[in-house]
Amino acid sequence: MDESFITLEFKDGALHLIDQRVLPASYTYFICKTYEDVEFAIRDMVVRGAPAIGATAAYGVYMAASRLATKRGFRTELRKACDFLAKSRPTAVNLEWAIGRMWETFLKVEKEPTEKILFALKTEADAIRSEDIATNKAMSRIGNQVVPHKATILTHCNTGALATAGWGTALGVIKEAFYDNKDIFVYADETRPRFQGARLTAWELMEAKIPSALIPDSAAATLIRDGKIDLVILGGDRVAANGDVANKLGTFALSVICKEYGVPFYSVVPISTIDFNLSDGSLIPIEERDKSEVIFVGETQVAPLDMAVFNPAFDVTPHQNITGIITERGIIRPPYKENIERLKKGESL
Amino acid sequence: MDESFITLEFKDGALHLIDQRVLPASYTYFICKTYEDVEFAIRDMVVRGAPAIGATAAYGVYMAASRLATKRGFRTELRKACDFLAKSRPTAVNLEWAIGRMWETFLKVEKEPTEKILFALKTEADAIRSEDIATNKAMSRIGNQVVPHKATILTHCNTGALATAGWGTALGVIKEAFYDNKDIFVYADETRPRFQGARLTAWELMEAKIPSALIPDSAAATLIRDGKIDLVILGGDRVAANGDVANKLGTFALSVICKEYGVPFYSVVPISTIDFNLSDGSLIPIEERDKSEVIFVGETQVAPLDMAVFNPAFDVTPHQNITGIITERGIIRPPYKENIERLKKGESL
Repeated sequence: MDESFITLEFKDGALHLIDQRVLPASYTYFICKTYEDVEFAIRDMVVRGAPAIGATAAYGVYMAASRLATKRGFRTELRKACDFLAKSRPTAVNLEWAIGRMWETFLKVEKEPTEKILFALKTEADAIRSEDIATNKAMSRIGNQVVPHKATILTHCNTGALATAGWGTALGVIKEAFYDNKDIFVYADETRPRFQGARLTAWELMEAKIPSALIPDSAAATLIRDGKIDLVILGGDRVAANGDVANKLGTFALSVICKEYGVPFYSVVPISTIDFNLSDGSLIPIEERDKSEVIFVGETQVAPLDMAVFNPAFDVTPHQNITGIITERGIIRPPYKENIERLKKGESL
Repeated sequence: MDESFITLEFKDGALHLIDQRVLPASYTYFICKTYEDVEFAIRDMVVRGAPAIGATAAYGVYMAASRLATKRGFRTELRKACDFLAKSRPTAVNLEWAIGRMWETFLKVEKEPTEKILFALKTEADAIRSEDIATNKAMSRIGNQVVPHKATILTHCNTGALATAGWGTALGVIKEAFYDNKDIFVYADETRPRFQGARLTAWELMEAKIPSALIPDSAAATLIRDGKIDLVILGGDRVAANGDVANKLGTFALSVICKEYGVPFYSVVPISTIDFNLSDGSLIPIEERDKSEVIFVGETQVAPLDMAVFNPAFDVTPHQNITGIITERGIIRPPYKENIERLKKGESL
């Protein structure tokens, strides 16, 4: 039931990442030998998906420490490396969260011998990676409860094993339901402009042999209106304390259509995606990406070179449009602010 | 104020069409020497846009007549050619309408000498073409009334000179407002999967020097919610008698977002786009196009080759979501059924 591929793996002193920029046409690994390579890999979207970039950045911090540990001003230089990695993509909070965990670990052991520091950091990065997989499996079991025995599910972007350290968030729920012998059909939005749905989700759905079809993003609305979608399940890159969810561009429009036509709409996120410090979604920084992503697809030019482009990578879905936020500790339902506060305090949902 | 290019022109015994499949990267003409070439050009979207394919098909009927006029069974063969042309794309009603006009013309002169028949058909095709341009100019003047002096307008697909015999429908209104010295900014949806917004509208906006930016289709919702769009103006491929509008995929979702956030939403269509015989939009045949349009962009593969694809070319926007339908005889407003009935009877709006 597990994937035949490994999204990210540290071995032989380097971080090996499936190069998600070129899937599915080609299947290769991008090898990061330095933390600068790691920063590039995140920024250029060799690896993407909030949980995957969190785990990737954790190894980046370890790799920075490996090089800097014996240098003068180790602490200052490592802090700089952490900040450098954190800026690679601004929207997903998992990146900050994972780097924060690595930094906390460093602070605990910084007086120890170099060998112990590096061991602690490597152990922490490995833990972030393996905990992510365990968290995904837990979310999948919980999320499976909202999937009917026969269901057509719409999903957006990629939230599978490729978006995480393994298994997946929203696509993890879908796989869990499928392996639980439910009669599942999945529509995958292609997800312009980077085509994560077309390139990655379609590939993962085919690998898992889940009955499915790919659609242009704009086709989702008609399917929803015509009663052809039983529920929407997708991921999240940052959840505010009031339940607003920043996720891949296109999520917000789907949520409005679902609300209009009464279709359940779920976001699946590990608790590390919740930014308890942010009161609402309007405060989430939205990354704007280069116009070349819209003007070119591979080598093919699809718009005039001089045309101005507005290319936000994410949008914010208001909590009012969300049926539930599925986490590893249960499903957060309205009232979101109160229930997220309970989660923060460690209370059960 | 007119375009520097001609979308379609009959000369030297052939129909010359700008090859819209390869704009803006290359600017070439596709030359139709037979009516079979014309059918291919419509089906393969060398030419597209409801009014443009109407005028193109009219010349196709004339070209069929030119070849068949001296043959046995001229009438039967010409009827077959008309049906063949009409099936090239099923959704836009202008195609049927233009072929119907050509057939009516033929019926009036079919007893006349060949030369007279061909002259009548050529004259009728020329009339359809030139009337379309005149109609577009009339709609633009009328539509300009709903555009504020300072306005950010969102449009979808291509509705400019390329979509028509010249000037344009929705983009015609936008150009009229701009040349009327209004302070206009246009956001153009790229319009997946065929990128008519990116390839054609962006090109026409730049040619006309109208301040504008291109966006992925999914970015429109956030702009609308955030109050950055004053009105949406787009075209239509078939309007039912109750005011439901079939238009390029993506239109329906935009209409729901506009309704939710109170943004005016206009469709601009010549009266030839209204199908008075169709009671509502659910009866409009929606063309499904080949999966290759979604799996490939040019030579670039963006999805697994074996993935199933649902690729409808159009969707239907319910009349409840439409602020007004701008025609050459005025703006149709709710109640649509009654007002379209008045239009049918020749009464003023």
